[in-house]
Amino acid sequence: MSFSPLISELIAAFRCLPGVGPKSAQRMALHLLERDRHGALQLSYSLQQAANQVGNCQQCRTLCETTLCPICSSSRRQRETICVVETPADVLAIEQAGGFSGLYFVLMGHLSPLEGIGPEQLGLDQLIQRVKQDQVEELILATNPTVEGETTAHYIADQLQGLPVSISRIAHGIPLGGELEYVDGGTLAHALAGRKPWLVND
Amino acid sequence: MSFSPLISELIAAFRCLPGVGPKSAQRMALHLLERDRHGALQLSYSLQQAANQVGNCQQCRTLCETTLCPICSSSRRQRETICVVETPADVLAIEQAGGFSGLYFVLMGHLSPLEGIGPEQLGLDQLIQRVKQDQVEELILATNPTVEGETTAHYIADQLQGLPVSISRIAHGIPLGGELEYVDGGTLAHALAGRKPWLVND
Ligand SMILES: [Zn+2]
Ligand SMILES: [Zn+2]
Repeated sequence: MSFSPLISELIAAFRCLPGVGPKSAQRMALHLLERDRHGALQLSYSLQQAANQVGNCQQCRTLCETTLCPICSSSRRQRETICVVETPADVLAIEQAGGFSGLYFVLMGHLSPLEGIGPEQLGLDQLIQRVKQDQVEELILATNPTVEGETTAHYIADQLQGLPVSISRIAHGIPLGGELEYVDGGTLAHALAGRKPWLVND
Repeated sequence: MSFSPLISELIAAFRCLPGVGPKSAQRMALHLLERDRHGALQLSYSLQQAANQVGNCQQCRTLCETTLCPICSSSRRQRETICVVETPADVLAIEQAGGFSGLYFVLMGHLSPLEGIGPEQLGLDQLIQRVKQDQVEELILATNPTVEGETTAHYIADQLQGLPVSISRIAHGIPLGGELEYVDGGTLAHALAGRKPWLVND
């Protein structure tokens, strides 16, 4: 004997959220039904709107519901510097740290042959084309300091060899194996300011 | 600079969930948008269905979308024993522990004058009427062993004095100050089996 069908389905549906197990899912469903129906309907509406309307910025690939994201369409950003990150959360982390006024390119992942994620899935053709066309002077590789992030950074640097753009890697200071979006603003700002030129292996 | 409006609204909407702070809300929103749109739409639909259709069982007050809940409408339950609990999660915990085949009465809370929750909000008139009409032989008070739960149990026991029903309190074994729904099945089954007659204070 368990909950009624609609409640059981709601508990099951909550399991799509990261880090939510059976007990948490049950607690969420009962909390909303017992105490916050308005919140439940608001969340339902927001999920539907976002899932149906949010796409990717045509220029930087970050998540947004307009053709260009707020950053790409801002007239106050310096267009000659592009910071390459893995996820939209990384963009937010760098914005909140402050100190960067260029544009972004969001890979929406990292190279992962096992998961079928290659250069095409990360939009690298688009990035290279943008570097060529938009007279980009500097490309900052701010992928995560993990094995996959480093591999992705190396791959991008290799692809850009010979082009008149200086390539830099976000400075150390971020703990190795860590994830960019969980680093505090001060460390992140410092790491950006202390970025080093990319050295081509010989 | 932050996320686009629809994403910001979705992150804000996730804050209605218990235990979900700004970072978790952001992680949930981005996870669904980056990797699980189908899950997002399914959750949206389930939330809407449940928030609009789930009411309370006419007999035991637990959450369900039908007039009578599955337990109240089952022909296999013994109708002469009623177990009084605070929440629908407590019903599930006792059902999963096994060993109880009577019916329930779900208070949907506990007495709390500061929050404006009195006997009326807990449906106590309905409970007393049911005890009288349905020839209930035993009422097991299984409110939480917290100050509020004990107070509520005492209040109910007082109201039923003089009626031909034996009143028992769920046995100790549940840690004091603990919450019923988080106790393991074995402890809970043991506590139910070892219930003691309610002793009237003199
Ligand atoms: Zn953009
Ligand atoms: Zn019922």
